Amino acid sequence: MAHDVPRDPVEELIEQLRKLPGVGPRSAQRIAFHLLHVPKEDAEALATAIIEMRRRVRLCSQCCHITEADPCRFCSDPRRDRSTICVVEQPLDVFALERAGYRGLYHVLHGVLNPLEGVGPEQLRLQELLRRVQGGEVREVIMATNPSLEGEATAMYVARLLEPYGVRVTRLARGIPAGADLDFLDDATLTRALEGRHALEG
Amino acid sequence: MAHDVPRDPVEELIEQLRKLPGVGPRSAQRIAFHLLHVPKEDAEALATAIIEMRRRVRLCSQCCHITEADPCRFCSDPRRDRSTICVVEQPLDVFALERAGYRGLYHVLHGVLNPLEGVGPEQLRLQELLRRVQGGEVREVIMATNPSLEGEATAMYVARLLEPYGVRVTRLARGIPAGADLDFLDDATLTRALEGRHALEG
Repeated sequence: MAHDVPRDPVEELIEQLRKLPGVGPRSAQRIAFHLLHVPKEDAEALATAIIEMRRRVRLCSQCCHITEADPCRFCSDPRRDRSTICVVEQPLDVFALERAGYRGLYHVLHGVLNPLEGVGPEQLRLQELLRRVQGGEVREVIMATNPSLEGEATAMYVARLLEPYGVRVTRLARGIPAGADLDFLDDATLTRALEGRHALEG
Repeated sequence: MAHDVPRDPVEELIEQLRKLPGVGPRSAQRIAFHLLHVPKEDAEALATAIIEMRRRVRLCSQCCHITEADPCRFCSDPRRDRSTICVVEQPLDVFALERAGYRGLYHVLHGVLNPLEGVGPEQLRLQELLRRVQGGEVREVIMATNPSLEGEATAMYVARLLEPYGVRVTRLARGIPAGADLDFLDDATLTRALEGRHALEG
């Protein structure tokens, strides 16, 4: 093959698709051939959506949530409780907490501490969080990282980091999820639910 | 929400990703946020690969395989056996047969007959195949559609279609795959292997 020949465009697309999370070699091939067979406009709509998202979406300079306007709609909403910040791993978690009825502010870390994968404190949006807490308006920081090893470690780390500032740092309650069947529940969850038991109001 | 506000670019991307085969709502979200976090050039490389593939790749006017040049490298290769055409469902099958050492010509149907999904003979590249067989150079057509219900039905249909032209129509052998463990083999495969048994050359 001559060196000035551009590489095969199907192979190039398959290679790009393989970089996506959860896309192995077989699904990359399937997606590439799908994009070859759909109407040209459909394939272009996907390409445009990628470009447009990167062009229009940025991170809020206050809470680091994804947004088109800065500050984002949560940080700029005067009706929200500005004394409470809920710290989450990913932008998706914000949507989940909104659905759950939370109406304070947020802070998105964009990851959790994970030394094995090379994610240290400097890779997370911690300086931005410290700056907000130093502002003095915040009274409570709710750590809503996932109940995983990394999520727990990150929650502990942030709690220690905020200790000097006298804010209350809390953690989401652990226990049995709504609609769960005790019989099918994993042991760790049931252990936590037992530890966290509380008096029934009669 | 005002009507002139463009829709959320992350939601738009998630919706486009969900149209891809094997991508459900959760993986569409994961991929979208992945594309938000990678360097901008990486996200753009994927978008460009999609556009470029659609711009540069076409179907060979003879065998309907994907190609940048027309006719494709198989149809234009004088060293290949032009008396044999191997009929496959998808371009990917061509790569598999190449790896298996086949050196005749190909014909890509771009699908199989599937009345339930609205795929009839007119959706497949059958007219192009008929034209090639009518050309007179072809002596054997190997039906290499998949051993599925639809693949078998398509093979039968093509065999009947080609009957008037006096070409030999063959089907890939069925039997136990290389390295298989008889114990774990499905019944249908073993039945076919028994039916197709042949004398051992001593």
